[in-house]
Amino acid sequence: MTERLVVIGGDAAGMSAAAVVKRQAADALEVVVLERGHHVSYSACGIPYWVSGDVEGPDRLVARTAAEHRRNGIDVRMRTEATSIDLSAATVEARDVDSGSRVQLGYDSLMIATGAVPRRPDLPGIDAAGVHGVQTLDDGERLLHRIESEQPRTAVVVGGGYIGLEMAEACLRRGLSVSLVDMADEPMTTLDPPVGALVREAMQDIGVDVRTGIAVSGLEVDARAHVCAVATDDGVLSADLVILALGVQPLTELASAAGLPTGLSGGLRTDATMRVDGSSQVFAAGDCVESWDRVSESWLHVPLGTHANKQGRVAGLNIAGRHATFPGVVRTAVTKVCDLEIGRTGLREADARRLGFDVVGVTIETTTKAGYFPGTQPMTVTMMADRATRRLLGAQIVGREGSAKRIDTCAMALWSQLTVDELMMSDLAYAPPFSSVWDPVQVAARAAVAELG
Amino acid sequence: MTERLVVIGGDAAGMSAAAVVKRQAADALEVVVLERGHHVSYSACGIPYWVSGDVEGPDRLVARTAAEHRRNGIDVRMRTEATSIDLSAATVEARDVDSGSRVQLGYDSLMIATGAVPRRPDLPGIDAAGVHGVQTLDDGERLLHRIESEQPRTAVVVGGGYIGLEMAEACLRRGLSVSLVDMADEPMTTLDPPVGALVREAMQDIGVDVRTGIAVSGLEVDARAHVCAVATDDGVLSADLVILALGVQPLTELASAAGLPTGLSGGLRTDATMRVDGSSQVFAAGDCVESWDRVSESWLHVPLGTHANKQGRVAGLNIAGRHATFPGVVRTAVTKVCDLEIGRTGLREADARRLGFDVVGVTIETTTKAGYFPGTQPMTVTMMADRATRRLLGAQIVGREGSAKRIDTCAMALWSQLTVDELMMSDLAYAPPFSSVWDPVQVAARAAVAELG
Repeated sequence: MTERLVVIGGDAAGMSAAAVVKRQAADALEVVVLERGHHVSYSACGIPYWVSGDVEGPDRLVARTAAEHRRNGIDVRMRTEATSIDLSAATVEARDVDSGSRVQLGYDSLMIATGAVPRRPDLPGIDAAGVHGVQTLDDGERLLHRIESEQPRTAVVVGGGYIGLEMAEACLRRGLSVSLVDMADEPMTTLDPPVGALVREAMQDIGVDVRTGIAVSGLEVDARAHVCAVATDDGVLSADLVILALGVQPLTELASAAGLPTGLSGGLRTDATMRVDGSSQVFAAGDCVESWDRVSESWLHVPLGTHANKQGRVAGLNIAGRHATFPGVVRTAVTKVCDLEIGRTGLREADARRLGFDVVGVTIETTTKAGYFPGTQPMTVTMMADRATRRLLGAQIVGREGSAKRIDTCAMALWSQLTVDELMMSDLAYAPPFSSVWDPVQVAARAAVAELG
Repeated sequence: MTERLVVIGGDAAGMSAAAVVKRQAADALEVVVLERGHHVSYSACGIPYWVSGDVEGPDRLVARTAAEHRRNGIDVRMRTEATSIDLSAATVEARDVDSGSRVQLGYDSLMIATGAVPRRPDLPGIDAAGVHGVQTLDDGERLLHRIESEQPRTAVVVGGGYIGLEMAEACLRRGLSVSLVDMADEPMTTLDPPVGALVREAMQDIGVDVRTGIAVSGLEVDARAHVCAVATDDGVLSADLVILALGVQPLTELASAAGLPTGLSGGLRTDATMRVDGSSQVFAAGDCVESWDRVSESWLHVPLGTHANKQGRVAGLNIAGRHATFPGVVRTAVTKVCDLEIGRTGLREADARRLGFDVVGVTIETTTKAGYFPGTQPMTVTMMADRATRRLLGAQIVGREGSAKRIDTCAMALWSQLTVDELMMSDLAYAPPFSSVWDPVQVAARAAVAELG
């Protein structure tokens, strides 16, 4: 009898695994994917750009449709929600979302790729109409339908992380008046506060009303049961639309209920082959798992599409009987607000101190091209090293066009545990249209070396 | 008595060393710089953009003037050419270029930073008016004066490397009709030929008459002793102006005459502290030295401003009594032709085969941003790995805006001797405006991994 892989969740991690398995094992493995939504293999990261109007959606955001996957021999079942897993029997129960009919599927391998859901704080009014999370294409569709049908004039974005920033800009571009509320003192708490302050300024410059250091106490709802305002400890903000951007949490109830182990974040714990701890036939990948952070040497929930794709591939190869490992992350990320680019990797200063590093930090101002070259743009690089080992601990870049992707150089240095001395002396591409003769990252490394003495 | 450092050559390497020494040692060391030209501390790499009109020159290309260096306590002597070195007496003889007067200077440390000169093949007519090399600001000035005073209509660029490409574009932008001649089958022999072919196409698209695989047999000279044509084994090309861009050779006659050791390229051989082999008090850096290539594990002449600056700094620190080392290069370089960007690092396929590697090479076509993101541009990545160790050996990128600087990711991977498997799985910044979800470099690494099996 042909063995069967059941995949729960048809986005990046799940479909990457399914596709790899099918490519490797062909007919030797039956691959069934259960997806509760309307779409598979889509770019969730593209949703803000769809909402803003930069990108047409939702089709453009779909890398491969269910029909295309089916043509490759994958049994994709849409609108089908896994409702329970029985590990001892090796079965999954699933429900057709529309008809309610149920089916039980045995598996030889199980892949859990249930993703994450936007955090919904337990606030009065949180379930009112007009309150939106942005995680799936279905979420994006609902939000756009709301914007187009109701023509809201004011939006409050709750949370100033990547999605919050991107959605604030998207709403602005849709013509809404936008406030962004965050409990922290600066937006982008993945950055050190002085770097976050640069982001705040850029947000304000484009016309976002940035309110930091304040908490949301509730959502006010009108007679139609529609949100109309956001109550904060600093007053009430009118809101025809509320975007929840408080980050996401791993969606692991199903797996937890089956007895699979989760970490502090709620994400599933796996080994480097993406097998769930303690299981030989259950794999997990993507936004529902924790990833090994190579810098802090700890398990963290790092929900990013790029990891989901890689982890899905690793899981798929192992399911297909090959060997592959996911070697962890260094917490690299990038985004932009209008033409301000933001990149980060490694530890923040507070993280590093908490972990006991004797931190040496520097901030330098430089330019994206040779200072004399037309179109050169300002950029700021912060960098941290450990005084004892001189190792790079983290870096952040904020600047105009051509700035942020340079964070990859720091990410690669972190990956290989280079010292800032080595980073300063490494061989980066130089020509006047691309860089100053000391690359901006190396100018920062040189400053760190000078501080280390 | 105060010790004295004599620096021969006042561009990137020499002035970096001088400035570092002065900063570290202050009045404990007298620093004398001998510069035979009219400028110090300038960006030679910026000259093509000055000729093209993109950048105003020459002042904008000067990072720091002689007067500024003097204010920092450095005794900069312009138009002063070192004519001989006596190692046993520890003296340098120098000549005032304008007056012809001579001076002898004793030194405690000597820094040789004489740079490189454009190769001038021994051809009939090579010394005619209208034949220009482009290496120093003085060269740039002479060339611009020629263009402005004589209004040439046709230019032939001899040599299709970085400078050749950049100068061909610069002449085109000055309104000249431009031919580019190279003996190799494709321009940019630092690239593998199929990648060079992409560059050729881009050159042709912007209107350069690219003639490859042909040799120049002589320059024809008119009655005014001015160049008027370039004779090749494929016919005669009219030329009011000839740009020699056949690469540069280390300018080490002075050092060689003093008995200092040079390598196969003619460049001085130093250790990692930038001390010339066999000397404790003689240092050298920049375009006149060979650099250790970490990938081929051999000494090569790699004349680039970025290395000159770093090596100069290292020499300066050691001269000032600190300890620093230059760890070598991986041969990263970048340039552009109009909006075609070109980046390379590591070995070419032919290099790798010659070194005995069992080469696995891949070429992938991808985009600079998410495929669906507005403004996404095509890019091509080639990558090579060693079958035995799976180590990255080299990579080349050709593409439109936002392509080439990504070569730094490969450079960092080469630096740390990563396998393509590790490169494929490393943590690079992803967001739709910056990258596909698998970074282009990782798409190439993944293809290499697939080839390796």
